[in-house]
Amino acid sequence: MSSREQIIAEMKQRVYEANLELPQYGLVKLTWGNVSEINRKLGVIVIKPSGVKYEKMTADQMVVTDLVGNPLEANSMNPSSDLPTHVVLYQSFEQIKAIVHTHSTNSVMWAQAGRDLPAYGTTHADAFYGKIPCTRQLTETEVKEAYEKNTGHVIVETFQERKLKASEIPGVLVYGHGPFTWGETPAKAVENSLILDEICLMAKENEQINPAIHEIPQYLLDKHYYRKHGAHAYYGQG
Amino acid sequence: MSSREQIIAEMKQRVYEANLELPQYGLVKLTWGNVSEINRKLGVIVIKPSGVKYEKMTADQMVVTDLVGNPLEANSMNPSSDLPTHVVLYQSFEQIKAIVHTHSTNSVMWAQAGRDLPAYGTTHADAFYGKIPCTRQLTETEVKEAYEKNTGHVIVETFQERKLKASEIPGVLVYGHGPFTWGETPAKAVENSLILDEICLMAKENEQINPAIHEIPQYLLDKHYYRKHGAHAYYGQG
Amino acid sequence: MSSREQIIAEMKQRVYEANLELPQYGLVKLTWGNVSEINRKLGVIVIKPSGVKYEKMTADQMVVTDLVGNPLEANSMNPSSDLPTHVVLYQSFEQIKAIVHTHSTNSVMWAQAGRDLPAYGTTHADAFYGKIPCTRQLTETEVKEAYEKNTGHVIVETFQERKLKASEIPGVLVYGHGPFTWGETPAKAVENSLILDEICLMAKENEQINPAIHEIPQYLLDKHYYRKHGAHAYYGQG
Amino acid sequence: MSSREQIIAEMKQRVYEANLELPQYGLVKLTWGNVSEINRKLGVIVIKPSGVKYEKMTADQMVVTDLVGNPLEANSMNPSSDLPTHVVLYQSFEQIKAIVHTHSTNSVMWAQAGRDLPAYGTTHADAFYGKIPCTRQLTETEVKEAYEKNTGHVIVETFQERKLKASEIPGVLVYGHGPFTWGETPAKAVENSLILDEICLMAKENEQINPAIHEIPQYLLDKHYYRKHGAHAYYGQG
Repeated sequence: MSSREQIIAEMKQRVYEANLELPQYGLVKLTWGNVSEINRKLGVIVIKPSGVKYEKMTADQMVVTDLVGNPLEANSMNPSSDLPTHVVLYQSFEQIKAIVHTHSTNSVMWAQAGRDLPAYGTTHADAFYGKIPCTRQLTETEVKEAYEKNTGHVIVETFQERKLKASEIPGVLVYGHGPFTWGETPAKAVENSLILDEICLMAKENEQINPAIHEIPQYLLDKHYYRKHGAHAYYGQG
Repeated sequence: MSSREQIIAEMKQRVYEANLELPQYGLVKLTWGNVSEINRKLGVIVIKPSGVKYEKMTADQMVVTDLVGNPLEANSMNPSSDLPTHVVLYQSFEQIKAIVHTHSTNSVMWAQAGRDLPAYGTTHADAFYGKIPCTRQLTETEVKEAYEKNTGHVIVETFQERKLKASEIPGVLVYGHGPFTWGETPAKAVENSLILDEICLMAKENEQINPAIHEIPQYLLDKHYYRKHGAHAYYGQG
Repeated sequence: MSSREQIIAEMKQRVYEANLELPQYGLVKLTWGNVSEINRKLGVIVIKPSGVKYEKMTADQMVVTDLVGNPLEANSMNPSSDLPTHVVLYQSFEQIKAIVHTHSTNSVMWAQAGRDLPAYGTTHADAFYGKIPCTRQLTETEVKEAYEKNTGHVIVETFQERKLKASEIPGVLVYGHGPFTWGETPAKAVENSLILDEICLMAKENEQINPAIHEIPQYLLDKHYYRKHGAHAYYGQG
Repeated sequence: MSSREQIIAEMKQRVYEANLELPQYGLVKLTWGNVSEINRKLGVIVIKPSGVKYEKMTADQMVVTDLVGNPLEANSMNPSSDLPTHVVLYQSFEQIKAIVHTHSTNSVMWAQAGRDLPAYGTTHADAFYGKIPCTRQLTETEVKEAYEKNTGHVIVETFQERKLKASEIPGVLVYGHGPFTWGETPAKAVENSLILDEICLMAKENEQINPAIHEIPQYLLDKHYYRKHGAHAYYGQG
């Protein structure tokens, strides 16, 4: 195998394993959900094929495309229909290397409610440096013209308008739809998807326990986020 | 085996497997729930036997009846007591080929609450083209005279009065009771039952997260439903 | 083995298996919960030993007592500390043959809330003929003098004052504590415990979905209860 | 093996097994959570290493430190970053021998809501003798100077100001963060963590079922707590 072939085979394996983690973690039902990984130098994206059942999926079926989403391998399956969203995110968020989309129950609850997820505790702060934004609703024109692509654009717009860094807030809620998360590896992006779902669940419940709840103070957010991320990180979880 | 015997054997196998999926997906407890399939040309319905435990059930025990619910095989077990409801639905909804009834937790919550399920997000729109109706309460006479059959009639009445198509809204909530779903195959009808339960859960929760929530716009409902159904479908889930 | 020994061995096996179903059904955590069976003719009660872990329990460890709760076998383990409650229920509710006590999550929620469980749907009506009562709070004297025994007495008092039949309402919520259910066999009593927990969950949620919810009409309660119980029963579940 | 080596090997095994129980009981996701045990005579604490996945962990990897948290074994892994919190608790609560920290869903909900957990039922009273306190928020200085250590101090302050005994209330909610529990053994501390999570879940729900709910009376709290703890205990659970 050439070096390029070897790298792609390893990407397929990582993307495959990360896809399998989604039902294992209870983050997807049926065939909902998809994971991709990008290698910008090599000019390839590897993503889950469309509509394949998790229990029958093989690493070899993962679809290889160029950086704008055109399949590169003969006889490959169709890539996930959400690929255009992934492509836009990879183009705009240059530091991310893997993306996950799910319809996980608690994240979708917040996406459908159309609210940003407040940072109510340190579980949130360990992985996300502040509120997780919910995008605006797509317009009729955006939906009709290029729905999946414009889903990517509305995410990027949200981060730009609010001056958020994709490296610090590795996830988003798309209004009326569901979550996208990302990370440096497929496994890390799945982990962020799991954390997002968990903090969505807890946030909903603690607003009921205490309707007067407010977000944790900035200094606690700083402490938890930076003891795990960046140059001065020292916390290994647990 | 004759062709007819072969077709019925295959129906039994599909109905059997779909019934087993109900406890696997967490949609039924104990012996609650039943699945059937119809073959109108052959003049047969195949349905789960009554009161048999899922872990002891065999494909061979599935009950074969004619199109009005009379058992056709000697020594067969009793068909599910809900068969008369299935019969009425098959007679009125000519395009459906399989029906599922469960007491799945979240769907029953809405049925007991007596509310239509609003289309709050794209998970809903991927499978159901709009609100999922909740029937009116059966009258005392309807309950006393022919309860199971009239459960079918009140479902049909609901779809007729609201001008809904069973092919576009493959499920219903029966007031105070629970859900029925349908589809082109037993597996597809079970899948719709799973999706209905999931969107019932999410709808309840997102009304709490945002009491001012409203349904997604028609153009987003159109996009998600039609990218997966009909002549221009292109989305393979995931 | 004598006939008496044989009968007791079979009781032990049934009580053992029913106890094991409690954690399997998610109705108990740790060592919480206990099941007993009575044979009035033989003058014996068989009950779970106290404080034994489910995964290490054997059928042989089930404790045999007389009808007032005195152990009958040499070297037997201690019976469940809740035995005096069981004894009082067996004395007052002559038609019941098995009792289950759990701290199952949803039933305890209602017991702690101190409310009767309304009959909001047919899942309830299939097993319980009307509201499931919550007892009053025990007085300080009742708690201090004979707590477990008086827990039985307050259950009996509740049924007598409200003119309820234990055969028709096979369960109760003890205020601030949790559920007791019963039935004709240990397995049936466990099943009632499972159903009670499920309808407690659904009732809580559908009050949130529709705060104006009311109980199902008497004729629907009658239909569902009597198609499964009594001389004219015809419904085999499913 | 010397006696000291033998004792430490046994501590490692107990701490290892208790750590594994956390994901088994659904109390932790990913690598969140940690368990420790102290032997004051021997002058050692054994705690989970930092950032190791549960499925790959071995008993041998448990980290041995002195009573102020300095690792004692050459080439050992890094101790859990929460060790300074454990150290402070061991110094102030002299009767406790094991500590558990998790981010379990329901306990975190209450911690983020910033409320004490009321004693709404006997499941609570069986393990905790009264309200479970939620600490105040740490100040900016406390967080910046010695966050993990000051997390311990704010717990101790909470118990001192409210005149609570760590032996009677074997757990606490740290504001905006999550639960710590303790006990006489690692297994017992995990058990208290499980119970705390369960009663947090039930308390939230029964406040919704009955917003006018109040705590159980003191005499019922006394009965349930003391029939299981102290010189006159007689209740073996179940």
